[in-house]
Amino acid sequence: MSARHKVIGRSVPRIDGVEKVTGAARYTGDLKFPNMLFGKILTSPHAHARILSIDTSAAERLPGVKAVITHRDVPDLKYGISPARWDENIFCIDKVRFVGDKVAAVACVDEETCYRALRLIRVEYEVLPAVLDFRRAMDDGQPLVHEEYPRNINTEIHQSFGDVEKAFAEAHHVRTDAFLGNRAYQAPIEPHSAVSLWDGDKLTVYASTQSPHYTQYYLAREFGMPMGDVRVITPYLGGGFGGKLEVTGLEFAGAVLARLTGRPVRMFYDRAEMFAHNRGRHAQYMEVTTGVDERGKILGAHANFIMDGGAYTSLGIATAYYAGALLPLTYEFDHYKFDMVRVYTNLPACGAQRGHGAPQPKYAFESHLDNVAADLGIDPMDIRLLNARRPDTVTPNEFRVNTCGLRQCLEKARALSGWDEKKAHRKPGRGIGVATGSFVSGAGYPIYRTDLPHAAAFVKVHEDGTAATLYTGATDIGQGSDTILCQMAAEGMGYRYEQMKIVASDTETTPHDFGAYASRQTLMSGTAAKRAGEEVKRQILDMASAMLGLPADDLDCEHGVVFSKSRPGKTLAFEEVARKHFVLRGPLLGRGVYTPPKLGGKFKGAAVGTSPAYSFGVQVGEVEIDEDTGEITVVGVWDVHDSGTVINPRLFHGQVHGALAMGIGESVWEEVRFDDRGRILNPDLANYRLLTALDMPPIRSEVVETVEPEGPWGAKEIGEGSTNPTMGCFSNAIFDAMGVRVNSLPLSYEKVWRALKEKREAGGGA
Amino acid sequence: MSARHKVIGRSVPRIDGVEKVTGAARYTGDLKFPNMLFGKILTSPHAHARILSIDTSAAERLPGVKAVITHRDVPDLKYGISPARWDENIFCIDKVRFVGDKVAAVACVDEETCYRALRLIRVEYEVLPAVLDFRRAMDDGQPLVHEEYPRNINTEIHQSFGDVEKAFAEAHHVRTDAFLGNRAYQAPIEPHSAVSLWDGDKLTVYASTQSPHYTQYYLAREFGMPMGDVRVITPYLGGGFGGKLEVTGLEFAGAVLARLTGRPVRMFYDRAEMFAHNRGRHAQYMEVTTGVDERGKILGAHANFIMDGGAYTSLGIATAYYAGALLPLTYEFDHYKFDMVRVYTNLPACGAQRGHGAPQPKYAFESHLDNVAADLGIDPMDIRLLNARRPDTVTPNEFRVNTCGLRQCLEKARALSGWDEKKAHRKPGRGIGVATGSFVSGAGYPIYRTDLPHAAAFVKVHEDGTAATLYTGATDIGQGSDTILCQMAAEGMGYRYEQMKIVASDTETTPHDFGAYASRQTLMSGTAAKRAGEEVKRQILDMASAMLGLPADDLDCEHGVVFSKSRPGKTLAFEEVARKHFVLRGPLLGRGVYTPPKLGGKFKGAAVGTSPAYSFGVQVGEVEIDEDTGEITVVGVWDVHDSGTVINPRLFHGQVHGALAMGIGESVWEEVRFDDRGRILNPDLANYRLLTALDMPPIRSEVVETVEPEGPWGAKEIGEGSTNPTMGCFSNAIFDAMGVRVNSLPLSYEKVWRALKEKREAGGGA
Repeated sequence: MSARHKVIGRSVPRIDGVEKVTGAARYTGDLKFPNMLFGKILTSPHAHARILSIDTSAAERLPGVKAVITHRDVPDLKYGISPARWDENIFCIDKVRFVGDKVAAVACVDEETCYRALRLIRVEYEVLPAVLDFRRAMDDGQPLVHEEYPRNINTEIHQSFGDVEKAFAEAHHVRTDAFLGNRAYQAPIEPHSAVSLWDGDKLTVYASTQSPHYTQYYLAREFGMPMGDVRVITPYLGGGFGGKLEVTGLEFAGAVLARLTGRPVRMFYDRAEMFAHNRGRHAQYMEVTTGVDERGKILGAHANFIMDGGAYTSLGIATAYYAGALLPLTYEFDHYKFDMVRVYTNLPACGAQRGHGAPQPKYAFESHLDNVAADLGIDPMDIRLLNARRPDTVTPNEFRVNTCGLRQCLEKARALSGWDEKKAHRKPGRGIGVATGSFVSGAGYPIYRTDLPHAAAFVKVHEDGTAATLYTGATDIGQGSDTILCQMAAEGMGYRYEQMKIVASDTETTPHDFGAYASRQTLMSGTAAKRAGEEVKRQILDMASAMLGLPADDLDCEHGVVFSKSRPGKTLAFEEVARKHFVLRGPLLGRGVYTPPKLGGKFKGAAVGTSPAYSFGVQVGEVEIDEDTGEITVVGVWDVHDSGTVINPRLFHGQVHGALAMGIGESVWEEVRFDDRGRILNPDLANYRLLTALDMPPIRSEVVETVEPEGPWGAKEIGEGSTNPTMGCFSNAIFDAMGVRVNSLPLSYEKVWRALKEKREAGGGA
Repeated sequence: MSARHKVIGRSVPRIDGVEKVTGAARYTGDLKFPNMLFGKILTSPHAHARILSIDTSAAERLPGVKAVITHRDVPDLKYGISPARWDENIFCIDKVRFVGDKVAAVACVDEETCYRALRLIRVEYEVLPAVLDFRRAMDDGQPLVHEEYPRNINTEIHQSFGDVEKAFAEAHHVRTDAFLGNRAYQAPIEPHSAVSLWDGDKLTVYASTQSPHYTQYYLAREFGMPMGDVRVITPYLGGGFGGKLEVTGLEFAGAVLARLTGRPVRMFYDRAEMFAHNRGRHAQYMEVTTGVDERGKILGAHANFIMDGGAYTSLGIATAYYAGALLPLTYEFDHYKFDMVRVYTNLPACGAQRGHGAPQPKYAFESHLDNVAADLGIDPMDIRLLNARRPDTVTPNEFRVNTCGLRQCLEKARALSGWDEKKAHRKPGRGIGVATGSFVSGAGYPIYRTDLPHAAAFVKVHEDGTAATLYTGATDIGQGSDTILCQMAAEGMGYRYEQMKIVASDTETTPHDFGAYASRQTLMSGTAAKRAGEEVKRQILDMASAMLGLPADDLDCEHGVVFSKSRPGKTLAFEEVARKHFVLRGPLLGRGVYTPPKLGGKFKGAAVGTSPAYSFGVQVGEVEIDEDTGEITVVGVWDVHDSGTVINPRLFHGQVHGALAMGIGESVWEEVRFDDRGRILNPDLANYRLLTALDMPPIRSEVVETVEPEGPWGAKEIGEGSTNPTMGCFSNAIFDAMGVRVNSLPLSYEKVWRALKEKREAGGGA
């Protein structure tokens, strides 16, 4: 592929690299404005309580306090992501629903005064019994988190494709397993932060958001303002992983405080508050039943899940749909049933976290599939190769898959990892596991304003052709999208990456783009950037045609050189043509737009989880287990991915490495834990244990390239898909190492140790 | 006119108003970057000296000093504005040529260390005799400021149109007067400042410049970089008045210091250094000869000028041409001769100051014309009405004047000021004077890259139509151009000003524009903004045509409402159409370009001073003089201006008020004075006496509107033209009050007192 391309397919340096490594890059929390105030939010100390009264008078009297606000000072319009489930208020009105629920906010001359002021706000609560165990939330007699949602059911999904019961009846072997997922948190390195400023009736918010256009939309909606009166700018962003997609109390309260005080207000969450705000991975209870034939071919599957939604909907409806919708992507079977209940609990709301709904169901299904393989005495690689999805197929829930390199990924992973050798010559305490994954390359159904094109971009060429600027509403949250979008615009133009500049993540200066979620930017924002570049190229070729006296369709432009396709000697520098164009025809300006094709079936919720293209990937993990302590050492990881055409190999592999860091953490260490009053026990980076650089195992990341017809030059996603196999792959490796299965995440040393102890006590051999 | 328009012609609030009055607006000097260093320039203490050696070692050893640079560390490529007269180096190599000439620079951790480091740089000089009196600079035996310029002649212009000698021979009366202008300084409230940052091979400079695109061009040229690798951004700017058009040592030295240290470097001039950098108004010696017929009709005129250029060319060649070229604009005569020598002296270089070359020659000519009128016993108003230029005429130097409301201005000023009444009933010590002026609405011949279009602009409409962003390379230096360009874009689109946003003054994010000089932005940048808006409107009408089922040419759009011209009821909101356009056709994006028509004659320098359109104006000033002290009290000023269509009346009148503040200051108080060693005696705002708000006289500003075919909706300039009549008008009012003429600027209390004393001693009555 990339031999034909001059800019894409190459590991060009990040466009933001120097600024970031020299510390010059400024993040939202680094911004300072004259006269700026600091704001903090008062949160609930109770998991569930009625608010009897709020007395802010003592706080208001404290010198240095410029404003104190409660629900009385803000619109009482509920908000949320799914319009059918708007259940959140800027500040609680009658009840608090989790420890951390927003009650009031202050704006003060400095941070210290903020904390003192918060302590002076007197809230009288009537403490209510709380729902803390999501698997009991639907039981009779449980308190209701929201009175209007009986049995605490936030969302219920029941989908059936084909005839699963019949498939099970006809199956050689039917097995059911149940697994429990963990509540995880994204833990981005940069805390959530927002600075709000008013200029007359117009609001500007600098926000650490993955989608400035989306934040703009929600701020405008909540405050009843025209969108054009709200400007949202995302400076450099230090990681989001799904947790910075939603509008937070920081943006809402900050805007109100700035309005009341007439001064800029900077709001931020400290690390503990970030954990309380949460919106991380849902814990899920997952029952999976599969029927297979003698060879292990899957005939049908049933997924029956319950999700712990926490106190609010957040992105959870989408998460619930994703959990089921993406499950049939990696393996081919015709009969599929999906049942899901997302329940409310008096815990922080869960939302989207890298891989969104997919990683835990994949963990469950991949673990389950190994159990099935073990039942039948089939090698885990073989059962996956047997069932692996092929290109140009349709899932039972009507998702169209164009390209799919899953089989090649399996074969390559098998070879690279030495799978067969390691299976043949087992070492004590060692185990090897495999799992597959697949993910969307952008959602066919966007999070809001579903009629809009999904991405737009402009390209302007400097008047002497020595630079070009890409204007995109896409947001680089650390993944490198600014870099690859510039690569794609440059490739489209026939230009050099090194001369690209970018304006991004600003609702005022860039055209609309939904932002960084659902791994959409490479395919969607990338197609818009490519098209904007191509529109410039058409103008360049047309100008060059006049300069060379050759027809435009005999000309092309690559990497800054315009050339005749028929007469090899005839060339012009891009810069020369661009300058002539500016002089004779005005500025070179290109425009690109992307709208996905119509996707999905006709059943309820059919569009949720659809994508123009799906990535596929395989991970093999090898572990060594210390039988005395349960300690798991990751000996090696092999990742082989089909993400279509790779735009920037270095960034591609960076995504794989990052996803593995998160996925391994979620597999073995990470879990947000609560006490019996709903308070987080480990809301800090000492006790919520992430992988650090020193914890990283050796990783081998490899590519199986397909050329996706729906993607720009064949590209698909990589950002989230590589998270999906990880938990399953380590679950299977640990199972392989010790011969018993731990059925809940994280696969902690303690659980492993206990499982080994039980196994020994039961007298079983490995 | 403006009844037809919805947005232009209205005093909409400034788009930057709230930010500026609340202190939120950040200027270059307010910017802070992580790791930023401070830089200062070491300047020459001598007016003229040979540099024998520079020893920077002691400075380099001082803790906190990060870099010390001299001419050895920078390109030795000379620079300047007129390519034929590049005579300036970033740092002096062999000689210093004025007190303040740049010798070295330091970058240090703080400002204090900079000053200490500068004192540690040891420069050995051989002091040379200096040329301080420009009227003697050409004399034999004078030292040469630049050895390659004999007799210190920097520029010589000799132009002759028609036959002046014959006209004088045929005249009823020929009179010659000689006047001396003053060296004035722009004194913008914001000091010059620049912050330079490198990102790899790419340079970003935040600079207090009137033309970021021009600064970009010169930085790229001096450092041999592609323009696209240099980004120049002008944050808010606190006044320029011509003095911030040139690239300064701050940008050049800052870029080198930032490169050497790898850190951002902030450079600035303090107030005294601003005076030394200068580039203000040239002092001029002006001889004017005019021949008139019996009625006072001018038959021919001869201007014979010498300008004090100071040590370098700066913008002085243009100044020299402007001085002569604009003189025949206000009065019609066929025979004209212009002789000009701009000489080098060992004083700070002079450049462009509001009105550029025009105000002093106008002072001379208007004073002279009153002398002629007095000789003939004609009322000063009458002689001006008799000679005033009419529309659709051509000057002797082949400048085409389309619209010209000068006669109406004179008549209106006569009526408003009570001229005839005041002339008829004179009060002791009081006098009233009149003068005219005219100025370019942008230069037909730009300051660099003469093949480029002069202005370009884009307009992007927000996806739901509730905002639109204008991208313009034009620069708001305080005059309000951001506001009126948004008005013009909105009018062009049929949109509302209140919903406009602007991106300006950034070479990376805006299309090319030459910037703020020669009063060009209203006409030139404005036409580009108008055309970008009109391109959006065409797309809106085309979309609305599909929505309404009516032909696009039956539709129009004004102030946010699309309507059918034939069916009054058929309307659509702009927002609705814009949103539909985004959904179905992608982002609304308009592009506008402006290139002036071919202007001027064929003689050498014919194009310099030409413009697509010329403003005209009249000022009447009334003064009262204290005979005992010479103190002049300005009793009132009446300004009547033809600036074509007025885009924003409040900003229009603001320009008139500001120009009068500067013009009155230059008339009576302002003068940069030197001691006998070429050192400025008054480089501060205590001793260089500007008018403050408390000094402002009552001003009545009125409009005579013409509709200029070359201007957007008929608009012409206002920013500089209103400076041109002021000195002449006060010269004439003072002459009228005391019956004797002071022939040099400023018309100081001392000079007035001396003139009155001489008159008394000579025994003459008023």
